[in-house]
Amino acid sequence: MNQANQTYLFRTANRIVAGRHSLGRVGEHLPMSGTFRSALIFTGSSMVRLGYIDELKQALDRRGIFAEVTTGIDNEPTVDHLEEWNRKISGGGFDLFIGVGGGSILDAVKILSVLQTNGKSIREMIGTNLVEKPGIPTVLVPTTSGTGSEVTPNAIVTFPEEELKLAVVSDYLLPLLTVIDPVLTLSLPRQITAATGMDAFTHSFESYISNKANPFSNLFAIESMKLIARSIVRSYEDGASLDAREDMLLGSMYGGLALTASGTAAVHALAYPLGGKFHIAHGVANAMLLPHVTRVNMDSIFHRMPEIAAAIGLNTSSLSAERAAELVMEQIFAWTQTLSIPQNLAEYGVGEKDLDGLTEAALKVKRLLDNNPKVLGFEDIKGIYRKLL
Amino acid sequence: MNQANQTYLFRTANRIVAGRHSLGRVGEHLPMSGTFRSALIFTGSSMVRLGYIDELKQALDRRGIFAEVTTGIDNEPTVDHLEEWNRKISGGGFDLFIGVGGGSILDAVKILSVLQTNGKSIREMIGTNLVEKPGIPTVLVPTTSGTGSEVTPNAIVTFPEEELKLAVVSDYLLPLLTVIDPVLTLSLPRQITAATGMDAFTHSFESYISNKANPFSNLFAIESMKLIARSIVRSYEDGASLDAREDMLLGSMYGGLALTASGTAAVHALAYPLGGKFHIAHGVANAMLLPHVTRVNMDSIFHRMPEIAAAIGLNTSSLSAERAAELVMEQIFAWTQTLSIPQNLAEYGVGEKDLDGLTEAALKVKRLLDNNPKVLGFEDIKGIYRKLL
Repeated sequence: MNQANQTYLFRTANRIVAGRHSLGRVGEHLPMSGTFRSALIFTGSSMVRLGYIDELKQALDRRGIFAEVTTGIDNEPTVDHLEEWNRKISGGGFDLFIGVGGGSILDAVKILSVLQTNGKSIREMIGTNLVEKPGIPTVLVPTTSGTGSEVTPNAIVTFPEEELKLAVVSDYLLPLLTVIDPVLTLSLPRQITAATGMDAFTHSFESYISNKANPFSNLFAIESMKLIARSIVRSYEDGASLDAREDMLLGSMYGGLALTASGTAAVHALAYPLGGKFHIAHGVANAMLLPHVTRVNMDSIFHRMPEIAAAIGLNTSSLSAERAAELVMEQIFAWTQTLSIPQNLAEYGVGEKDLDGLTEAALKVKRLLDNNPKVLGFEDIKGIYRKLL
Repeated sequence: MNQANQTYLFRTANRIVAGRHSLGRVGEHLPMSGTFRSALIFTGSSMVRLGYIDELKQALDRRGIFAEVTTGIDNEPTVDHLEEWNRKISGGGFDLFIGVGGGSILDAVKILSVLQTNGKSIREMIGTNLVEKPGIPTVLVPTTSGTGSEVTPNAIVTFPEEELKLAVVSDYLLPLLTVIDPVLTLSLPRQITAATGMDAFTHSFESYISNKANPFSNLFAIESMKLIARSIVRSYEDGASLDAREDMLLGSMYGGLALTASGTAAVHALAYPLGGKFHIAHGVANAMLLPHVTRVNMDSIFHRMPEIAAAIGLNTSSLSAERAAELVMEQIFAWTQTLSIPQNLAEYGVGEKDLDGLTEAALKVKRLLDNNPKVLGFEDIKGIYRKLL
């Protein structure tokens, strides 16, 4: 499975606390060594309205931590928006940043944490290992299932002038504490449940077939696919099911651990230009692309499909790898239908004339295309985008 | 599987690097933030003789770290031995402790790390969360498969006067870096391969049936049992098989992650008095006890056995849980035979007259007996010890 002399790495949050209502116990789980006094909570207005932020503030208060709250982070934030926030909060004396939200808020908190301490601009930190100092310690609490951002060393920033989304990758982005509380995801709307759920599945699927797959990423990827497969339709159709919500939130977190250990591949490479140029949400772009990229990849990855088939509950033990691969493909397409995943780029203003530009932009995401088990050329990629017109 | 409002926790080493010959790349994987200058390596003479310590010193040298080496830690070290070592190394100016060895050496390094910085005696730190400050940062490199100590917050100390083994439990014992290099285990003798392998299996088996089992511990426990089951006999019969050695070392580490997330149970409670009073190595004691404790527990745990059966490669999908449980029991007894696990306490000087004392001592390990799915009374425990006379 792993190459003979491959070295592989596991790293994540210092601590992960999970379970229903774990947000209310956050004070008990902050390391005792920390003498935190003043926290800044970044969140969305729905979390405030539903009372979860009050619950969090009380939990912090019991540890002697005073907290301020802001709901001002934009969705898929731009570089300027984040730099502006960095100036706004400087001098506030905060010694703990807490993010309670989806991937945009969690990524913003990670970036702001290191912006506060490194004396560098975001542009200077884009890339791998260019952050030089630890940031303000962070607590990350996901409310979507999701990006897995709560356990990864990655954060995505939008550069509107270049029409690009780029990543800061550094172990200094890993949080002090991750809180996995499925109660917070109960109010997630259906379409977001569907798109973010398929995004999480994509993280695990790509980590598993990645050229950098290894025993650590495989363990988390398979567990993630198992949990998501058994609960994605139920969480979509019956959003109040806490069992299904818990599966999805754990599955999404394991997806984050998987991609941190190995790395995603062509689906992600093709998704970034759709976000940068046409403002398609990251989760939606991945969910749209997964079936089509997988079909193109399949002749290079079918031998890995029996284990995925077993994980997602298909009984293929008496079938060939080729037949198992077909059934996995069919299941992915079936989810796309059942979950009403958008399948038409035209709705987002993409036309035939845009395909060359998108394809060229995707080819630049070499870091991820290099992880893809099949070499994809210009025509392959353009053909995939065209399927979605 | 998990109780409705249970909160569960995942925590481990800051980083785990794994793979063949990963020891030689330790310098690359130390966090860049650390400005380490002077390391002290604790190891055994065989690791020096086989050249691995030279390889490690060269890797450290490339990061500008000078290293001294000592092979002076006793097996299953006593409290006095460790306090003496603490005095000996004080003032040495070391800023990094590295342990390359079995559970005794790794536990010793963990204890010495916090002894150096806390200004407390070992006795004052025995128990849970009684260490107050971070220790000297540590790198832990296991050479047995094993205790899992390289990823746990626990360290065991022998108190010969009280005939007890007691644990320091603190997140400050977690290492900065864990290195999982199966090459180091190639020279492990057969009997140690067998006993430590069954010890690792016991960690995962008990974590899985523990009252504190949860989704995190279950994931690692099942993966651990899967890897150990497929490779324990091969690693015993063909110690040069690097594939089998890699499975065993990963399986042992996952066992450490599983027990950190949930907790072991009656096997461990009964094993400690055998170590404290009769100096039976921890791994051997666990391996001896596992089949007999499991038989007594079985009426309370048989419903969990189908998943264990599947993990260890038994095809029981068409059978009842009761029948699957019987097959799991048979497999554990079969390993005991095949691996020549000692099954006679008399060889260690234990007689009928000692059983009351052992039983009373085991009943005092309440922390672990409370995790056991079945309440075990005096006669139950004495009966288990008697099976081994």
